[in-house]
Amino acid sequence: MTLPVETFFLKPDAHGTLQQQIQQMIAQGILSGRFKKREKLPSTRKLAVHLGVSRITVTIAYTELLANDYLASKGRSGYYVSENAPSPPAFSATPERQDAVDWTRAIGQKFSGAATLSKPLDWAKYRYPFIYGQADPTLFDHTNWRLCALQALGQKDFTSLTTDYFDQDDPQLIEFIGRHTLPRRGITARPEQILITLGAQNALWLTTQVLLTQRRNAALEDPCYPALRDILSQSRCHVTPVRVDQDGIPPDAIPPQTDVIFTTPSHQCPTNATMPMNRRRALLNRARDLDALIVEDDYEFEMSFLKSPSPALKSLDTDGRVVYVGSFSKSLFPGLRLGYLVGSEPFIREARALRASVLRHPPGHIQRTAAYFLSLGHYDALIRRMGAALQERRKVMEEAIAARNLEISGRGFYGGSSFWMLAPTGIDTEELAQRLRAKGVLIEPGHAFFSGEQPPHNYYRLAYSSIPSARISAGVDLIADEIAATSPTGPIY
Amino acid sequence: MTLPVETFFLKPDAHGTLQQQIQQMIAQGILSGRFKKREKLPSTRKLAVHLGVSRITVTIAYTELLANDYLASKGRSGYYVSENAPSPPAFSATPERQDAVDWTRAIGQKFSGAATLSKPLDWAKYRYPFIYGQADPTLFDHTNWRLCALQALGQKDFTSLTTDYFDQDDPQLIEFIGRHTLPRRGITARPEQILITLGAQNALWLTTQVLLTQRRNAALEDPCYPALRDILSQSRCHVTPVRVDQDGIPPDAIPPQTDVIFTTPSHQCPTNATMPMNRRRALLNRARDLDALIVEDDYEFEMSFLKSPSPALKSLDTDGRVVYVGSFSKSLFPGLRLGYLVGSEPFIREARALRASVLRHPPGHIQRTAAYFLSLGHYDALIRRMGAALQERRKVMEEAIAARNLEISGRGFYGGSSFWMLAPTGIDTEELAQRLRAKGVLIEPGHAFFSGEQPPHNYYRLAYSSIPSARISAGVDLIADEIAATSPTGPIY
Repeated sequence: MTLPVETFFLKPDAHGTLQQQIQQMIAQGILSGRFKKREKLPSTRKLAVHLGVSRITVTIAYTELLANDYLASKGRSGYYVSENAPSPPAFSATPERQDAVDWTRAIGQKFSGAATLSKPLDWAKYRYPFIYGQADPTLFDHTNWRLCALQALGQKDFTSLTTDYFDQDDPQLIEFIGRHTLPRRGITARPEQILITLGAQNALWLTTQVLLTQRRNAALEDPCYPALRDILSQSRCHVTPVRVDQDGIPPDAIPPQTDVIFTTPSHQCPTNATMPMNRRRALLNRARDLDALIVEDDYEFEMSFLKSPSPALKSLDTDGRVVYVGSFSKSLFPGLRLGYLVGSEPFIREARALRASVLRHPPGHIQRTAAYFLSLGHYDALIRRMGAALQERRKVMEEAIAARNLEISGRGFYGGSSFWMLAPTGIDTEELAQRLRAKGVLIEPGHAFFSGEQPPHNYYRLAYSSIPSARISAGVDLIADEIAATSPTGPIY
Repeated sequence: MTLPVETFFLKPDAHGTLQQQIQQMIAQGILSGRFKKREKLPSTRKLAVHLGVSRITVTIAYTELLANDYLASKGRSGYYVSENAPSPPAFSATPERQDAVDWTRAIGQKFSGAATLSKPLDWAKYRYPFIYGQADPTLFDHTNWRLCALQALGQKDFTSLTTDYFDQDDPQLIEFIGRHTLPRRGITARPEQILITLGAQNALWLTTQVLLTQRRNAALEDPCYPALRDILSQSRCHVTPVRVDQDGIPPDAIPPQTDVIFTTPSHQCPTNATMPMNRRRALLNRARDLDALIVEDDYEFEMSFLKSPSPALKSLDTDGRVVYVGSFSKSLFPGLRLGYLVGSEPFIREARALRASVLRHPPGHIQRTAAYFLSLGHYDALIRRMGAALQERRKVMEEAIAARNLEISGRGFYGGSSFWMLAPTGIDTEELAQRLRAKGVLIEPGHAFFSGEQPPHNYYRLAYSSIPSARISAGVDLIADEIAATSPTGPIY
């Protein structure tokens, strides 16, 4: 029989073009068993009229399904569900039941409940998003990224796209990082000393697993990137937070017995402090005296638009005691999840083996796309454009902040993409953030960056990487008004 | 001054089109500081002649570099290195030195040295690749994958491509898996019960970390997927290998005190045994008696082209004690690194938190591309085509194997993509594999699949997922000849 045209509906929540929606509707009708083999479909004209779409749209959808052998056509007599169409399962799905398992007992290790920087998933819909680390569609070079991705999807690259590298990386990406990216940080490295990771966080995680145990000690900047603190506490090693000053982590404050020092010399996260050369040397000497290793997260080095970036700590490392963490996720886009580790061979060998066991390797297509984007010079051009835009926004920010007497706690004299702010004592920036959110302003409360039981609650971060200049001062005004309104010391004028 | 045309060379090992190679050469000359700002480039004509390429090729390369602000053009007077071109670093890379670090001490945890199934990276160049789990370019639906990837790269999907999901997944992919993929396995699951992983191995790794500790016991199929054994030994839990028979793992052989049972009911890896329904029920009862959990790796269920697949163990699970592992990497391509976990909410919550800390989330673009490929029906069509091709190859394999009296130890009556083979006693299949490799034949030695100190050395796996039918019998002949030549019991006729 012919399937009654009335049984065909486009889901209101369906994705894609009309033609794709029709294709999905029919394919899924067949896969679910609603449409049976040899059943006749409505004519393209009939279905087009019924759905209120053009006949050609239906015809293209039918042709697609013909190619995939969901449908067969019998010349003039029209389209039928194909004999060879995928069959529905011979059994039906079981309804959900109550668990008989006692999960509090069954779960061997808990990982949930860590302090995180949450932002609304629809942050882009807010008018004043002073949030950190998201891609700005107005700055990102979407066209060239798309072209490079396309090329990496080409027949020529089929193997690099599809192959199971097991524990290897894309040789083209490794080659570029070794020949061009690292030399720009003053670092020399052979391919065996480089490992591609699923973003900087994955690099820090791998490093922690390889270098730290319950019997070892880590020194951590305070404040710092919260996810790093979670990673370290999960590793169960002993962690000592070291309070940073305007030059970053003070070497003398690093306790004896420290095995691994985690630091962000380019732009301290979140204070934006850039570590001066003399302190970098002092830090290396301190590490040598303690026979400790240093993990350098070369955080936002590309965002040095005010002064040219200093060479990486790793480039001053004559002992091989620095493990270097680089990332493309921040400068390209975080959803990319692409970073890398640079270190001595024995270390990289273990990190590689661990990565192979945890996830084998980062997806081939992403590695190859990045390799093209970098080697064609699009990456450096993008960084330059971003730097120019951020510099301009930063100027507007500084003026707006000064105009309203807001207190900057850390501004980063090399650049960066955010200000580390201090609200008057007594103000809880988490509540502040909630109230501002209702007014379309997104700021980041600062307490999550701090270690210890009693973190200060009056710090907050204002990033300018995702907000257009034109909206900055109005946004800062709203923040200042809210602070003034709730300041225990009364409004500030 | 003008840069002498003689200083321009195309690297013989360069990648990409000629135009891209020229673009790379110039961009990298500028980035490395070889070409200084305001220096004049050779005319397009001159450079074209010097490199022996068409002038238009050079012109396009120059125009690209103009757009990226590497070059500036002064009308008739030609092209110059732009004032705004990215600058080279102010410092030079340090030469490599000997490490002063004692890495044997510095490394806290060793991960390297596990038994792995290594295959030559250039396996595709071999004439008789009986290797497992690589994509066959002749079977993969490259065109439609490319179209879906393109769509996921479009402006409309910019956010889903670039955003930092933190611990979330692509809602479109989750929705499709929940609404269409899992019902076909008899499984009902809400979004909170599904987690996208970086392939099935990543799913197994996350599960192990959440469910097992040094004080807990795991039961493991023997033989089994070697990477799973590595993951379990790294978790330091107590592991009991349970020898499988022609129906998979025997429930009664699972020791008391077992906390977690790992099994592959659809196609046991590597023996291809499919667990009958009555044993699936017996296994669930055994698990209930032990109050143990079951981790079901629904290995190769799509490759059931001889009989329609049985519902997943998870679909018979009334207690919520089954954790289900699914994968797209095998059926699409391993380089994709995309799989998923299905389990009760408390479990998924912990797995999600761990994933967030280890790698945050699988790249957005890959998730969205898969969502399109699945929802348009390309995936099921692909599976169907692959099944048909594998069924035909399998027939050719069986004939060739019978003709040469090779012994099949496991053939999988539902389908699969490989045979589990037994060579005469005394034959070491690792040596056999080496000798065959020299003759262009790739087989997989079987010892790595076994647990224990003395694994049998005369098993091997012959996969037909990457070798064309036309070459199968000649390949099998070479294997049989080699075995006969080295068989301690003398040639077999």
